[in-house]
Amino acid sequence: MRSGPLDAETILTATEDVLRRHGPAKATVLDVARVLGVSHASVYRHFPSKAALREAVTRRWLGQARDPLAAVAADTRQAPPERLRTWFTTLFTTKRTLLSEDPELFATYRVLTAEHSSAAADHVAELIEQLRGIIADGVTSGDFASPDPTATARTVFAATMAYHHPAHAPEWQTPGAEAALRSICALLIDGLRPR
Amino acid sequence: MRSGPLDAETILTATEDVLRRHGPAKATVLDVARVLGVSHASVYRHFPSKAALREAVTRRWLGQARDPLAAVAADTRQAPPERLRTWFTTLFTTKRTLLSEDPELFATYRVLTAEHSSAAADHVAELIEQLRGIIADGVTSGDFASPDPTATARTVFAATMAYHHPAHAPEWQTPGAEAALRSICALLIDGLRPR
Repeated sequence: MRSGPLDAETILTATEDVLRRHGPAKATVLDVARVLGVSHASVYRHFPSKAALREAVTRRWLGQARDPLAAVAADTRQAPPERLRTWFTTLFTTKRTLLSEDPELFATYRVLTAEHSSAAADHVAELIEQLRGIIADGVTSGDFASPDPTATARTVFAATMAYHHPAHAPEWQTPGAEAALRSICALLIDGLRPR
Repeated sequence: MRSGPLDAETILTATEDVLRRHGPAKATVLDVARVLGVSHASVYRHFPSKAALREAVTRRWLGQARDPLAAVAADTRQAPPERLRTWFTTLFTTKRTLLSEDPELFATYRVLTAEHSSAAADHVAELIEQLRGIIADGVTSGDFASPDPTATARTVFAATMAYHHPAHAPEWQTPGAEAALRSICALLIDGLRPR
């Protein structure tokens, strides 16, 4: 039996351990309670169902990829075109690192993300909001022309899909993948310049 | 027993019928010979192995999506920017039609395309060559700036991945998918303009 207070973060870390060792089929409330040496009631106190637990750990995983991006989006020392390029490169390298460090866990979270589509949709909405901020800053600075920064954010996000959608993960390790992403960014940034 | 000469095209059509009815696990030489009412030796005369037969039917399927595109690429009555937009819209709508007409057959060919990666690579190389032609024409006409039309072709192909890679097929029927592709094309075309 473990000692000390049982908080949500501890439960989620144990859930990820279970996922890492046993894949997406495991990670029920009972599995996690067993690993922590606590009653399942004390897990239910934080997460009222298996679905809630799995959704919460999925949201934590997605947030992990999102936090370094928020820092880039807010870094007004970088001019908006350079910031847009850095943002996409950071998104790509962060996801590629998560994949290469633990391919099975990456695959497990891909299954969970498909199961919890509202977590995935919220994640994408937050990424689009970060991009919108960079594009709006570019409009203010005169670097970009965009009548609708949210729509433009969606367009540049869709145009870089091959470098962040997990369906394309098998190609991320190929030589030249990052250079190819940079070529797309360069073309998009040129396309955004006022004329 | 069927009568008349047995040509490769007849065999491939029968192979596609077998695939349509039974999925990718079927479509061996024996299955196809049975459907045609011929000996398996007469199928082997055209396709020396199961792998050769399956690769040939995959190449025919991929070619089906490619032929209308060749016509667009060669249509010099359209200015290069408009031709590029038409080319990508045709690629998208052709694939979406194949998907909506027979989703199981589309899924079957996705399995076959993964099995025969050289057929898939050759297909992409031919598409890139068509795009290269449009971009080179745009450089000649002064509509586009590109130091390397083949590299630019690869970049615009990668930037539209969500609208032709079958991993994204589930999203092709959503309202706004074609408009989203057009927004990417508009941004890419602006990015290609000389400055």
